[in-house]
Amino acid sequence: MGTKTSCNITASPTIILVKPQLGENIGMCARAMWNCGVTKLRIVKPRDKWPSSSAKAAAAGADNVIGSVEVFESLEKAVGDLNVVFASSARPRCMTKSIITPWEAASELQASSLAGLKAGIMFGQESKGLNNDEIVIANKVIAVPLNPSFNSLNLAQAVFVICYEWRKLTNRIDSSELLISENPKPADKKQLIYLFKHLETELDSCGFFRVGEKRPSMIRNIRNILSRVQLTEKEVRTLRGIISSLVRFGGRTNNLEGE
Amino acid sequence: MGTKTSCNITASPTIILVKPQLGENIGMCARAMWNCGVTKLRIVKPRDKWPSSSAKAAAAGADNVIGSVEVFESLEKAVGDLNVVFASSARPRCMTKSIITPWEAASELQASSLAGLKAGIMFGQESKGLNNDEIVIANKVIAVPLNPSFNSLNLAQAVFVICYEWRKLTNRIDSSELLISENPKPADKKQLIYLFKHLETELDSCGFFRVGEKRPSMIRNIRNILSRVQLTEKEVRTLRGIISSLVRFGGRTNNLEGE
Repeated sequence: MGTKTSCNITASPTIILVKPQLGENIGMCARAMWNCGVTKLRIVKPRDKWPSSSAKAAAAGADNVIGSVEVFESLEKAVGDLNVVFASSARPRCMTKSIITPWEAASELQASSLAGLKAGIMFGQESKGLNNDEIVIANKVIAVPLNPSFNSLNLAQAVFVICYEWRKLTNRIDSSELLISENPKPADKKQLIYLFKHLETELDSCGFFRVGEKRPSMIRNIRNILSRVQLTEKEVRTLRGIISSLVRFGGRTNNLEGE
Repeated sequence: MGTKTSCNITASPTIILVKPQLGENIGMCARAMWNCGVTKLRIVKPRDKWPSSSAKAAAAGADNVIGSVEVFESLEKAVGDLNVVFASSARPRCMTKSIITPWEAASELQASSLAGLKAGIMFGQESKGLNNDEIVIANKVIAVPLNPSFNSLNLAQAVFVICYEWRKLTNRIDSSELLISENPKPADKKQLIYLFKHLETELDSCGFFRVGEKRPSMIRNIRNILSRVQLTEKEVRTLRGIISSLVRFGGRTNNLEGE
């Protein structure tokens, strides 16, 4: 993986789970958060006792998140020190409140952080989500544009999608950073041309080009395949070895052309 | 070909879970898929028996996905009718294969669908992910750019993030942008696998794999070359013709290995 992590001075948002039911779900949220580099988790009135061994197991190694969870007795206390709070909710509400997408939320979270503000996102309990009294505290509501007939996300998925968009934006990652570092050297064109000639000589010799006038276009097609694949030097040697082997020692069995 | 199509006719990709361990995780994947409007789920060799009541419970209402799951005995059969296959993988591999992000994958999935091709994404088992023999069949690898020190996603999260990016992209399609390209049809994986087997049989027969223990890795290298190039049906036929010709009629001249 590339290690470019510049322009990442944005503080990560605080995740607030309101009355979560299962320790396991809290753990899965912690894992999803840490996957995205988000660390601050607050829990309001968990149903099961805290700390929770099932939460720790489901966190699957996100120990720094699980180990520093803050537990609150009320939502008001949990959001008390935050300047900006969003509510994650799938259901439309009879309330005048802006609805934004996760990527719009990411953008606002970044702007808040750059302005020195503390921001958080609240998520309701697994079975019912946030109620109106909880949502009303939020500046805006985040809704994930999903299948309209099946838009209720698993709690950890809801946490993940917002953290993911936040990470995507704040890390400005592009695919060039994902290139596997051990990519071997592509063959140069000279090696490729030797390969072409090796193969074409053998094909001429074995009568592959039965219709003479089609020979140029068939050669173009074959060269095109071999050019397109961006072969490494080692792969060129492998292919040349294959050609030599087939020519020298092939033909001892029935082949599989019928398939 | 070349016709303009209207909004949002993109067929959703097929999700392939390779040797999943827990029914519950399969159910959570089904839920995540249907959240994004993705319906086709294939399972290769599930560890627990299928159908699974825990899968159905975890699907939380995504019955159309869970109810139409197809189970396969091998990965080769599961991808046989697909033209384009991506592998979801967090770990870097010693293999020359393009790595793309979920949003780049979404874009390629959309393009494939608009060109009339069938596309799928494979996901490995919960504990270990996909192995190299499985990844090698893929055209490209999808990696989610996450926290580099904690990038192993829960299976359902991995499925979700790719389906989510697919939905995000395909639901915003503007019909004027949907020009279909006139590229010839890529071979499906079944044709590619016949090509692999044809070549490998001939190579076995002609003693190409002199060092027995290197055979698996050499086969992976060869399959990787042939998977990466996105061969058309015609090209597969050409390559099989080449193999047959070399085997039957080759060896009449000195070859050019020395170059």
